[in-house]
Amino acid sequence: MSGMERDLNILIINGPNINMLGVREPEQYGSKSYKDIEMELHEYSFELGINIEIFQSNCEGEIVDKIQYALGNFDGIVINAGAYTHTSVAIRDALLAVKIPTVEIHISNIYRREEFRHESMFADVCVGQICGFKIDSYKLGLQGLVNFLTSAND
Amino acid sequence: MSGMERDLNILIINGPNINMLGVREPEQYGSKSYKDIEMELHEYSFELGINIEIFQSNCEGEIVDKIQYALGNFDGIVINAGAYTHTSVAIRDALLAVKIPTVEIHISNIYRREEFRHESMFADVCVGQICGFKIDSYKLGLQGLVNFLTSAND
Amino acid sequence: MSGMERDLNILIINGPNINMLGVREPEQYGSKSYKDIEMELHEYSFELGINIEIFQSNCEGEIVDKIQYALGNFDGIVINAGAYTHTSVAIRDALLAVKIPTVEIHISNIYRREEFRHESMFADVCVGQICGFKIDSYKLGLQGLVNFLTSAND
Amino acid sequence: MSGMERDLNILIINGPNINMLGVREPEQYGSKSYKDIEMELHEYSFELGINIEIFQSNCEGEIVDKIQYALGNFDGIVINAGAYTHTSVAIRDALLAVKIPTVEIHISNIYRREEFRHESMFADVCVGQICGFKIDSYKLGLQGLVNFLTSAND
Amino acid sequence: MSGMERDLNILIINGPNINMLGVREPEQYGSKSYKDIEMELHEYSFELGINIEIFQSNCEGEIVDKIQYALGNFDGIVINAGAYTHTSVAIRDALLAVKIPTVEIHISNIYRREEFRHESMFADVCVGQICGFKIDSYKLGLQGLVNFLTSAND
Amino acid sequence: MSGMERDLNILIINGPNINMLGVREPEQYGSKSYKDIEMELHEYSFELGINIEIFQSNCEGEIVDKIQYALGNFDGIVINAGAYTHTSVAIRDALLAVKIPTVEIHISNIYRREEFRHESMFADVCVGQICGFKIDSYKLGLQGLVNFLTSAND
Amino acid sequence: MSGMERDLNILIINGPNINMLGVREPEQYGSKSYKDIEMELHEYSFELGINIEIFQSNCEGEIVDKIQYALGNFDGIVINAGAYTHTSVAIRDALLAVKIPTVEIHISNIYRREEFRHESMFADVCVGQICGFKIDSYKLGLQGLVNFLTSAND
Amino acid sequence: MSGMERDLNILIINGPNINMLGVREPEQYGSKSYKDIEMELHEYSFELGINIEIFQSNCEGEIVDKIQYALGNFDGIVINAGAYTHTSVAIRDALLAVKIPTVEIHISNIYRREEFRHESMFADVCVGQICGFKIDSYKLGLQGLVNFLTSAND
Amino acid sequence: MSGMERDLNILIINGPNINMLGVREPEQYGSKSYKDIEMELHEYSFELGINIEIFQSNCEGEIVDKIQYALGNFDGIVINAGAYTHTSVAIRDALLAVKIPTVEIHISNIYRREEFRHESMFADVCVGQICGFKIDSYKLGLQGLVNFLTSAND
Amino acid sequence: MSGMERDLNILIINGPNINMLGVREPEQYGSKSYKDIEMELHEYSFELGINIEIFQSNCEGEIVDKIQYALGNFDGIVINAGAYTHTSVAIRDALLAVKIPTVEIHISNIYRREEFRHESMFADVCVGQICGFKIDSYKLGLQGLVNFLTSAND
Amino acid sequence: MSGMERDLNILIINGPNINMLGVREPEQYGSKSYKDIEMELHEYSFELGINIEIFQSNCEGEIVDKIQYALGNFDGIVINAGAYTHTSVAIRDALLAVKIPTVEIHISNIYRREEFRHESMFADVCVGQICGFKIDSYKLGLQGLVNFLTSAND
Amino acid sequence: MSGMERDLNILIINGPNINMLGVREPEQYGSKSYKDIEMELHEYSFELGINIEIFQSNCEGEIVDKIQYALGNFDGIVINAGAYTHTSVAIRDALLAVKIPTVEIHISNIYRREEFRHESMFADVCVGQICGFKIDSYKLGLQGLVNFLTSAND
Repeated sequence: MSGMERDLNILIINGPNINMLGVREPEQYGSKSYKDIEMELHEYSFELGINIEIFQSNCEGEIVDKIQYALGNFDGIVINAGAYTHTSVAIRDALLAVKIPTVEIHISNIYRREEFRHESMFADVCVGQICGFKIDSYKLGLQGLVNFLTSAND
Repeated sequence: MSGMERDLNILIINGPNINMLGVREPEQYGSKSYKDIEMELHEYSFELGINIEIFQSNCEGEIVDKIQYALGNFDGIVINAGAYTHTSVAIRDALLAVKIPTVEIHISNIYRREEFRHESMFADVCVGQICGFKIDSYKLGLQGLVNFLTSAND
Repeated sequence: MSGMERDLNILIINGPNINMLGVREPEQYGSKSYKDIEMELHEYSFELGINIEIFQSNCEGEIVDKIQYALGNFDGIVINAGAYTHTSVAIRDALLAVKIPTVEIHISNIYRREEFRHESMFADVCVGQICGFKIDSYKLGLQGLVNFLTSAND
Repeated sequence: MSGMERDLNILIINGPNINMLGVREPEQYGSKSYKDIEMELHEYSFELGINIEIFQSNCEGEIVDKIQYALGNFDGIVINAGAYTHTSVAIRDALLAVKIPTVEIHISNIYRREEFRHESMFADVCVGQICGFKIDSYKLGLQGLVNFLTSAND
Repeated sequence: MSGMERDLNILIINGPNINMLGVREPEQYGSKSYKDIEMELHEYSFELGINIEIFQSNCEGEIVDKIQYALGNFDGIVINAGAYTHTSVAIRDALLAVKIPTVEIHISNIYRREEFRHESMFADVCVGQICGFKIDSYKLGLQGLVNFLTSAND
Repeated sequence: MSGMERDLNILIINGPNINMLGVREPEQYGSKSYKDIEMELHEYSFELGINIEIFQSNCEGEIVDKIQYALGNFDGIVINAGAYTHTSVAIRDALLAVKIPTVEIHISNIYRREEFRHESMFADVCVGQICGFKIDSYKLGLQGLVNFLTSAND
Repeated sequence: MSGMERDLNILIINGPNINMLGVREPEQYGSKSYKDIEMELHEYSFELGINIEIFQSNCEGEIVDKIQYALGNFDGIVINAGAYTHTSVAIRDALLAVKIPTVEIHISNIYRREEFRHESMFADVCVGQICGFKIDSYKLGLQGLVNFLTSAND
Repeated sequence: MSGMERDLNILIINGPNINMLGVREPEQYGSKSYKDIEMELHEYSFELGINIEIFQSNCEGEIVDKIQYALGNFDGIVINAGAYTHTSVAIRDALLAVKIPTVEIHISNIYRREEFRHESMFADVCVGQICGFKIDSYKLGLQGLVNFLTSAND
Repeated sequence: MSGMERDLNILIINGPNINMLGVREPEQYGSKSYKDIEMELHEYSFELGINIEIFQSNCEGEIVDKIQYALGNFDGIVINAGAYTHTSVAIRDALLAVKIPTVEIHISNIYRREEFRHESMFADVCVGQICGFKIDSYKLGLQGLVNFLTSAND
Repeated sequence: MSGMERDLNILIINGPNINMLGVREPEQYGSKSYKDIEMELHEYSFELGINIEIFQSNCEGEIVDKIQYALGNFDGIVINAGAYTHTSVAIRDALLAVKIPTVEIHISNIYRREEFRHESMFADVCVGQICGFKIDSYKLGLQGLVNFLTSAND
Repeated sequence: MSGMERDLNILIINGPNINMLGVREPEQYGSKSYKDIEMELHEYSFELGINIEIFQSNCEGEIVDKIQYALGNFDGIVINAGAYTHTSVAIRDALLAVKIPTVEIHISNIYRREEFRHESMFADVCVGQICGFKIDSYKLGLQGLVNFLTSAND
Repeated sequence: MSGMERDLNILIINGPNINMLGVREPEQYGSKSYKDIEMELHEYSFELGINIEIFQSNCEGEIVDKIQYALGNFDGIVINAGAYTHTSVAIRDALLAVKIPTVEIHISNIYRREEFRHESMFADVCVGQICGFKIDSYKLGLQGLVNFLTSAND
């Protein structure tokens, strides 16, 4: 698992209420604030030798806009779409439209929660899915995505 | 993401037909042989500074036996239960009985495949779930598990 | 049922198409205009001795923003999320994140209408639900919320 | 919200096990005894300037009898049918037969409880539904009903 | 279709709210009062040369009691169980216990009404089912039952 | 229940395999041959003082043709659509198109048989439904229909 | 399995149609009459050294009444709710209200019968469930309940 | 099919990701860019002698805003709501509120795609639905709408 | 949208009860007779410069025969299969067998009607689907089909 | 597996679109024409020493007619009902009526195709089912049927 | 309840993870170790005057082997199949094959746990089912089975 | 149907409880013992001029092992997986991994039995399926498989 490709640009998309981390249900999401997490991810991207941009919105439409914008500007996407994971056909369609390799991640273990959180509207159009590792979900997602983008298909 | 804890003992459990890797549906599972993968994982465990044992069986009962045996002998489990992921209440019960932190992984993206592969019988009793990264699913799973075991809860 | 606590700040959130009241299906929603209703609610809040702010948006994301903003600024929420009642996990998550006591109300009797309007995505994370009393649904909701906030738990 | 019409006669119907209040699951229903609640409701009816009769039965058939009897004797009904809410077509038919304006109320928030409690067999033949406000559910129901009966349709 | 057997004793059972006929939803049930119908049925039984008893109760348990009592006292039953048709396993069990030939009838066409009225809990343990002919449903049911009881099996 | 109106023309439609009566599953349908039944029905129509035509076809399309042809030629229809009862939207549409009062009958008690026989595609567009009385189902259906056609609505 | 505690008072509740034993479907329920069974249970309670009262009603509401009455008067309940097992939320709520240790029993093996008999509305609020042993179901239920009440929790 | 009414104002609404046409899945949507399509539709509106405005947004709320704005400003709407077709109760409610005749169109044949795309949340509140004709779906929709608006009801 | 190709031969297939137009439910289907519609379509085909044949049958099998016959004789099919739309696998198979481009149309808006009319057995094997425009559905279908057949794929 | 019984008369019934073999979806059904297959089956029947008649119809009713006709004329039936396999209760009823031993066959493997093709309406009233062997399905079906008819029950 | 028949041989089968008792989820299963339980059961069998063998396996196939082996060697079976209760058709088939009277038992109350534990694959082929009495479930099961085997059918 | 290819090696796999033939439910499976059947199949393989190996196991894992072992050692598989047919994803995966042409057979007609036996987990990855012909199911399966392996694709 190498991954020292300074040239990769990765977009990290956070959906609704992810900005409330630290405030929101700490037993599900941990006690780090969203600020802390942004900082940690920037540090980690430096370790991985990649460029990242972190985007958050509570609005489904703005997330669609951002995914469309990613076309030509980013090599990969790590998405934690929060609540929209389970309801948004629009985000699915945006990912299908731009065809940028994407990793779906979740901070909490979605399979321990309400039934409706067990289904993702776009897991099947992503490279893979990672959930349950708190903030490490992002890091594992970034690492998996970088490996995917830099290695020959095995 | 540090992780130089030589003392951790991790059990990697592979369920039915995982031993056919390289032979079986390479478009889903990649072309590396099961032997190659074992080797790569041993190398990677050395990088992570942990001890691993890799176990494979086609028999649900033997996997249950092995999980029971892990109690007192291993600090964590990475499990790719293959077909039994979707049908085995017995493996779920074994994990509930031993309460060893476990990461569920899948080589392929199970959400791109038959409907019945979208449901896991034990995802909710694991730390987290990773799928779709081919052999990297194991590596990411090991890394996530090591971090989980070595860090204070955040 | 007293309730003369001038200090309570209550946010009234109206979801999509509530601003069309008077125009929209008067047999379901009555013939008063949205303006009229705002006025009546301000008068009624004066009677109850509380402060209210009335917010309306057709955008799910803006409603999530507003709920997040309510944290620290409001003591309670009365929400008529309209169509989003039946589809929005994001609003549910916002309510879970801010943990502000909330009352769900509906102008019409949702159980007389299409099947998909019988289910609310967040009734279980609210104090209670009131529906069917036309504009009185807001007033009863405010009264119930004020009582909830001002009385010892019984 | 006026409501000083001394002439209104309202029947309050309580279904099975409501008489166990105070004894039964206080975390759902509060700790006031059924006696206390009857008293409070009589006081509140005095405040509202209406006449009430409170009826309780554990028997579906007796509740049907009572609703039939209400025809010509009461102007409105507030019903907390308890368990029969979710199973009784007979009560639905009785309400349809007498066509007396009725408000359905619940002490607890039924949407936080077992799946089968989320559905009411007669919510759609009532004026409206109120749940989750403990004993205030009755008071809000009475108020909503009085307003419904005394005001011109808006 | 003969049927001049003075010796046959038939029990007609009417379930909840049937006593409200004439009052209740006349577009479904016609405008004759329950009294009128009793009278008409007594006249008709005289025409058929049989003895009938007409029983009505709003209480499921009393209907079960009556069916049990019928054993040894009646040759056949015509039952219009009203709302209990769709919910009562107890009435089914009573009919199974006494094994008296029974005809299920409905005044209205139950297939034009709410989904839950399309299913009968005991149609399969009756001789047959008749619905939609208003008061004639009783008469056709009596006639069918008398024929069933008096003719050799064809 | 009078019914001496010589002028009424009633069409009796029999669907697929009804012509096999006597041959087919006698435990469900009785042992009389289709010929016998035609004869009995002609005799019975004479008793009722009406004119009947009996039509049988195994072909859904021919039954639709016949129903269309009935418009202007018949006052009512008694239909035993056999297997097509449970599958034919086309027969439903034909009945809706011609709007001739129709009674649905079944020789056997369809509720004692396979699940798929419990549902009729057109019961709700008929006057009523009668089942389980063997050949008497036809006679009761004719009588019910004649009463329906000759009496003022009650 | 000791059990010589003369002081225990156990209420045996029998639901609808249990009083028809011996008459009703002997292939399901055996040929002993209800009288015989009452006698046998009294003898057996003497063997166990406990006091029992046996109650039977065909009315759901009377069973609820009896369960409420048991509070303070009985140490445990053995209930064979018959048909109400599968439909009664009211009995579930009564058991939840009184919190008296209860054993659910059935004479027949309910899993060999109609689909709707496989589900119990209150099995999860009982100590345990026993079915299929004919009259022995009562005896095993009494024994299990006595052991539960007299032993330290294991 | 005439239609030379210069005075008609038609609003064409495009939902999320429609602006990606030409980029997005050309096997489903054809290879023309969104720009090309706008141009073609403007030309076609000139042929039809009507005025059109074309609106696109990725945001459900903005589409609702636009539909509300259409009241008084447009005679008809052609809507291709993309992903929101299958999830948006809010758009349904907006169409119900403004009551402007609307035609639902889809570029691709939605019945050849994922199950969840087979259902439209608002097809039943539109004049009609057209799908599968690529860009011609818009043209046929415009033509159908113009005819609907200009002809007497047939 | 040109379309002056005199050489195209289009088969218009009408399923059961379409021949009853004008007679049948005019609120769904308009008041023009089937004769009128045939005439209008012949005029319209002249406008479009194509040859059409109009076929109607109430029999599923004859429609299958006709579709098979179309192979080699027609360039395209416009089908309004009426009731068979929702039930006929045989028509689906015929369309799959002949592979002639086909447009499915409906006179009424099928999404406003009974649940079972919302599903088409062959929409996914057609070019596209048009519904709700009364007789214009045929005309729009013809136009869409002609464009499909005459233009290069876009 | 002997089978030289010249006296057996077997009817082979082919349902809708089977006559299109060779034309229709050759990847599912092979490239032999229906003519070829008839010839091959006649040759094969000669090998088996039996008499066969091959019948094909696109009309459900004609297939029912033929099955009825088989009574007394044939010893067994091999049926490939094509599309009607999945929808025809009428064919099921015809097979039940004539009680001639029947083998259900399919040319393609129906379990690899659309969900609705996985269910047969009459598999349970046949001797057995064979699918997936292309034209050999007929031959294996004939052989299995001949063995069934000529051997003592084992 | 006598039962001093020294000659009865009973096989007790324990499925997967039952050997973890005492270790596994003590709140569900109690704190006694599997060893303790074996001992207690041997003592209890001595009390009952029967011979028992206790078998445990985590492997479905070995449990099937053991049931097959029981034929001729045991008079009855008490089975706690653990997880396989809910998934194993193979164990059901083995019980059907050997036809040895079997009692299904569960230590915990399976109706208080996950939905999938509410269904048993073989309850209907056993004499009866007992659950929820911790280790007493075995004892009650043994007693019920001994009574069943030694008494005349009642 | 030739088939004199001495070189073909076919593996016959029998799942759980098949070894109980003759003992187990003879009305479903016939009265021949498993020994008899092995012998008959060996004789029949000699007739066909092929080599067979017959394998039986009650253990899902051993069947998976055997299928994996078949790779390189067998040209085809005839599998009667018994109970595992309906539950085993592992066997499906093994068949997918080895890609050896396989025929699924059943001795009994699985469509006459419990609902859960109607579905096979791997019918769609086999060449074809044969059921209902008792031991002839094996013979027909062998013959079909030999033809499949030896003939050019038709």
